[in-house]
Formats: sequence, structure tokens, C-alpha cells
Amino acid sequence: MSILRSLPEQVDFEAPALAAAGLGQWEIDLSSDSARCSPRAEALLGLAQAPSPRTLSSLLDAFIPEDRSAVAAAFAKVRSTGRLQFERRIRHAIDGTVRWLHVKGGLSEDASAPTKLMGIVADVTEWRSHQDRRHQSESMAAISHVCGRIAHDYNNFLMAVGTNLEMYEEQVTGSERARRFYDAAQDGLQRGARFNESLMSLAGRHHLHLAPVRVDALLLALEPALRTQMEAAINTELLRPSGPLTCTTDASQLEAAIQQLAANAQDAMPGGGTLRLSLNERQLDGCEAAAYGVAPGPFVVIAVDDTGIGIDDDGIAHVIQPFFTTKGARRAKGLGLSQAYMLARRSGGFIDIASRLGQGTSVQIYLPQIV
Amino acid sequence: MSILRSLPEQVDFEAPALAAAGLGQWEIDLSSDSARCSPRAEALLGLAQAPSPRTLSSLLDAFIPEDRSAVAAAFAKVRSTGRLQFERRIRHAIDGTVRWLHVKGGLSEDASAPTKLMGIVADVTEWRSHQDRRHQSESMAAISHVCGRIAHDYNNFLMAVGTNLEMYEEQVTGSERARRFYDAAQDGLQRGARFNESLMSLAGRHHLHLAPVRVDALLLALEPALRTQMEAAINTELLRPSGPLTCTTDASQLEAAIQQLAANAQDAMPGGGTLRLSLNERQLDGCEAAAYGVAPGPFVVIAVDDTGIGIDDDGIAHVIQPFFTTKGARRAKGLGLSQAYMLARRSGGFIDIASRLGQGTSVQIYLPQIV
Repeated sequence: MSILRSLPEQVDFEAPALAAAGLGQWEIDLSSDSARCSPRAEALLGLAQAPSPRTLSSLLDAFIPEDRSAVAAAFAKVRSTGRLQFERRIRHAIDGTVRWLHVKGGLSEDASAPTKLMGIVADVTEWRSHQDRRHQSESMAAISHVCGRIAHDYNNFLMAVGTNLEMYEEQVTGSERARRFYDAAQDGLQRGARFNESLMSLAGRHHLHLAPVRVDALLLALEPALRTQMEAAINTELLRPSGPLTCTTDASQLEAAIQQLAANAQDAMPGGGTLRLSLNERQLDGCEAAAYGVAPGPFVVIAVDDTGIGIDDDGIAHVIQPFFTTKGARRAKGLGLSQAYMLARRSGGFIDIASRLGQGTSVQIYLPQIV
Repeated sequence: MSILRSLPEQVDFEAPALAAAGLGQWEIDLSSDSARCSPRAEALLGLAQAPSPRTLSSLLDAFIPEDRSAVAAAFAKVRSTGRLQFERRIRHAIDGTVRWLHVKGGLSEDASAPTKLMGIVADVTEWRSHQDRRHQSESMAAISHVCGRIAHDYNNFLMAVGTNLEMYEEQVTGSERARRFYDAAQDGLQRGARFNESLMSLAGRHHLHLAPVRVDALLLALEPALRTQMEAAINTELLRPSGPLTCTTDASQLEAAIQQLAANAQDAMPGGGTLRLSLNERQLDGCEAAAYGVAPGPFVVIAVDDTGIGIDDDGIAHVIQPFFTTKGARRAKGLGLSQAYMLARRSGGFIDIASRLGQGTSVQIYLPQIV
């Protein structure tokens, strides 16, 4: 017990460097299951109150249920490896937010305290979000490259078949019935060519007609069509500022992207709900812009929000990838969001998606504003 | 200068929690460009000797040349944001190794020292490597899914065209010359179908004949063909243990994968060199296995090593993706390594690649061993 008595002084002290880096300290005695946290560690863990000493299992409870077994496994392994390191999510007991924490530590090097585990904790929510966006962007670049290469090869096969089929048709004679098979073969080639077009758009090789577009006017003109497109149980709202907002993009592709997002929103609201289209301006500074891989400056933000079933965290990570569909959207090919993503990228912008299960999804298209 | 005089005591002290977590501390006075590091920070930065006080620019020199401007930019921004956070690579002055460091800190909250920047530094090389493997695996899963969906759709188009083309051919009459166009169209369809097959293998939907395979015997039997396949300037070596090594995999696909890796190795050695095939056993513990997303246990490791031009870090991150080719391998479609990767994954194993520019590349196929 002499070890535990000496803990308070150690963990209550926080080195200025730890304060500057926003890190908290903690200590756990594995043999007695006593745990102590520095004030900043308590705050980072989002603990409601501070009974002292805590137990390891009370610290585990700070983590969200889905992550608890992984946290427990990391602590269980520390006796054999001597080291602890994991990133898992807590739910803040007071404000209810979910945050990613990085926990790192190890067994004390003091031979007289072989079961004393110590370390630091840091909030890595923003850091991870930055990394996730970078990985998503790299992953989409790889997928885009693959789609382009496949489309290129298939185009060669389809061209070879199409050319030879036409030459064959010129050289043969047959009945009206025969003609129907020729037309059906041609139809298959056409469908392949249209599919190839969509792959080319995913590859960013589709031709875009980039021109200054008045996005406010485009949305106003699109609204009646969207209202018609929506089922009766869906209430459609359009919120836009009074002034003009202009971006350089492809107007017809942007219209198609918004219609596709509206269709996704409708699929997410089988019992009805509200589709809200809104238009805003936002200034992105260097840090924010870098996180999304764009140049800083003013952006026009087109948001398509629904009050539907929402997408879970795992789905959010994949929803932008082509051919990804959630259970709620069986009808879709799963290309709409990917094409919207490519259009935004090629217009110098990006797409941001936020969702909560049971509460709805918000897709925001950011496009650099011409001011 | 009063601030700097007080620094040594602070940075020389390291809290036990920092020691347990392996973190170092540092302090920099931006106005005087004086920097001090704790002993562990010095060790992590891989500094050769310890002149005290250091300067910020001498710390920058610890980072590899490619990363220095990003580090300098992070420090330049700290005056406006008050915070510092980055991950960059240092080259250890003594042992020459390159390591990833995470640096985090901020301006002192002490109003009397507004230019005092403090924080921590941690070695995140293994952590990043673990994350990179996870992202690579997720990215490949997404690409694999995309390839599968595209192959499925194209298969439908090709089937529709092929069936109708055959029906058309039955209903028409034409010359021998006409027949040649028919055959050429059929040939295009066949090439499309073969390409589809390779996409299906990338999608993991290709049929595998999984059976216990004596990998030692397979390599011994394959060696003469590999020697014949290699150009004269390439020396081929085979190193294998005396005992039998057995895995459950598809023998002919494994042969094809090794031949493809040997062909890649040859492409990387235009001036000749050594191709070394080797076979080993390795036990993976829980941690290592988790990093690769496989079950722990004994593995057979088939290594294909060359002494060729090597692949840079950026290339290594993408080399496993389909249709990725390095400049040195223009001949390749860029599918060989992806197919080998899918075979290894579907056999319960994985692929690990290491390379150094100008020194060569090592590709290791890990397959779970039957003991």
C-alpha cells in the first residue's frame, strides 16, 4: 500500500510540457485494482465525478460499450508485454459527446512496484479525423485509378467487338428475325459503353464543362423538380441566402449530383420526413483546407440534409466509395455519391458527410467561391 | 533570459508516467531561438551530442531533408494558432535509422512567457506501421469490392452480346470474309471475358482449389522453370530448409504468384543481379498477427528477393494495388502483386513488402502452416 499512498502527489502534478500538449497522466496498481488520474486525465476521460482512488473497471466504463472489450484486452496483455497502447472512444459523462482517446503507458521500471502501470492519455479526435480524411482521399484516388484502367481496357474490347459486329452485319444477309439479334447485341454493347462512361466519371476522365455557375439560381430552378421527385410524405425545404453565390463547376453535373443526393435522402426516409436543401458561404483557413486537401479561401456549401435512418460510423467510412450501398438503398447502384465526390474534387472542392443513426444524414458539397 | 535560466530543471525532470509511456519533453523559446530537450527527447530525436542550449534550427536538422519544410511550417504557424502537432521522420544521427516522431505542444499558458513553446515527443514508427497496414487492408477490400461489382456488370453485358451474336450468326448467311469479322468479334468478347476473370480474382470470387500443399516441394519443382525464365545476367538462388513445410492454399495459383513475383524482380534488375527465393518458418504472436489481420500461429514464409532498383516509400504504399506499376515495370499490367495478395488473404495469410531504393525489394508471402 505504500505505493498507492505515494500516488496522489505524482499524478496531481502535471509537467508544464504535458499541459502545453494537452496530455493527462494516470496510474493504476494492477494488484489492488486502484487507479488514479490527474485532473486533465479525468477531464479527457469525461468522468462525471472523482471518487479517489478509482478502480480499473470504473475507468473501463468511461469507454463506449462497443470498445470496452478491446480496452480490457489491452490491459490484460500488459502483464506479459509490459506495455500498453490503444486508441478507443469514450462517451463524455457530462456533455454526452464521443471522443477518441490515445492511451499509452507501461509497467513501472521500479522493481519494487512490478504491478504499477503508468502512462498518459490524449484526445486524438481531430487528429484521427484529419488522418481519416487523408486515407479516404488516398483510397478514393486508388479506386479512381482502378476504375480508369478497367474502363480503358473494356473500352478496347467493346470497340473491337462493335467494329467487327458492324462489318459482319454489312457482309451477311438475314431475316427480320436475325436483325433483332443484331440489335440486341448492339444494345448490350451500348449498355456496356454507358457503364464505361460512369467508370470514366469515377476516374475523373469524364469531360466536364467547367464554367462560372450561379449556385443560388441553380438551386432555385431545381427546387420544383426536386419537389416533384419526392414522395408525398417528404417535406422539401430550400434555405438560401439573398445574395448571389458563384462557383466554377459543371452546372448539369452539379444538378445531377444534387438530384442523386436527394434520391438517396428519400431512400433513407421510407416513413417520410424532411429534405432540407441549404446554401451557405464558409471561409476555410489553412488548417481546415489542408485537412480536406484543398486551397484555403471562401467556399460555397450546398447541404442536402434528411431526417432519415442515418448511417453508422462504419458506413460513413465507406459511403463515398463506388458500389457501396447501405441496406436502406437497395435500388441504388451506389455511384451517385462517388460521382458527386469526383465532381467536387475536380471543381477544387470536397464533400463532407455527417450522420447519426435514427436522426438523419447531412451531405455537404464544398465548392470554391468566386468572389 | 530569466525564462531560459529556469528551463534546465524543468526539462531534465521527467514524470514517471512520461517514462512509462516513452515520451520525451522539450521547450523552445521562440524569441531567442533557444531549445532544450529532456534526455529522452534527445534520444528520440536521435541527436548526436548535446550542446546546451540548442537552437530550433538545429532541431530541424534532425528531420530528414524531405520533411524539414513541413516541420518548419508547423513551427511557423504556432505563433498564430498557439498549438503545434505533426508527425515527421528523423534520421538517427548515430545508428542512421529513419523513425517517425509525433510532436505535440503549445505556447506556455504563462502570460509572462508568451513565446515559450513546450511539448512532448514520441516515437510512433511501429504505431504508424500498424495503422498503415490496416488502411492498406481496408483500401484493398474497397478496391476488391469495386472490381467484383464491375466484373459482375460487365459479365452481364458480355453475356448479352455473346448470346445474341451467336443467335445472329445462326440466322444469317455470308461469305468466308464475313466469317472473319464474326471470329474477330468473338475474339474481343473472349478477351473481355479473360479480363473479367482477372477482375474476379482481385475480387476474391475466383474459384480456388484449396488443398494441403507441400510448399518446399513446390518451390524445388518450380526452380528449373524460374531459372529458364530469368535472363542470363540474373543469378537465381533457392534457400529452403531440409524439412517439409505444408500450407492450405491453391498450388497452381501459388506457382503463378511466385512466377509473377520473379518476373517483377527481373524487371527491377535490368542490369542483372540476384534473385533469391527462400522458404522459412515463423511464429506470429497475437500482436503481430493482429497487425496483419490474421490468426496467430506458425506461418510458412516464401520470400522473393531481388537486388534491383527498389521502390520508394510512396510506391511501397501503392504497389499492392491493382493496375499500379512502377516506371521500371512498363510491361506489366500491374495485377500480379494484387493477385498474389488476394491468394495469400484467401489462404489465411498476407503479403509483406520491404524495399530500399538502389538496394532491392523483398516480397514475403505468409501462409498459415499446417503442423
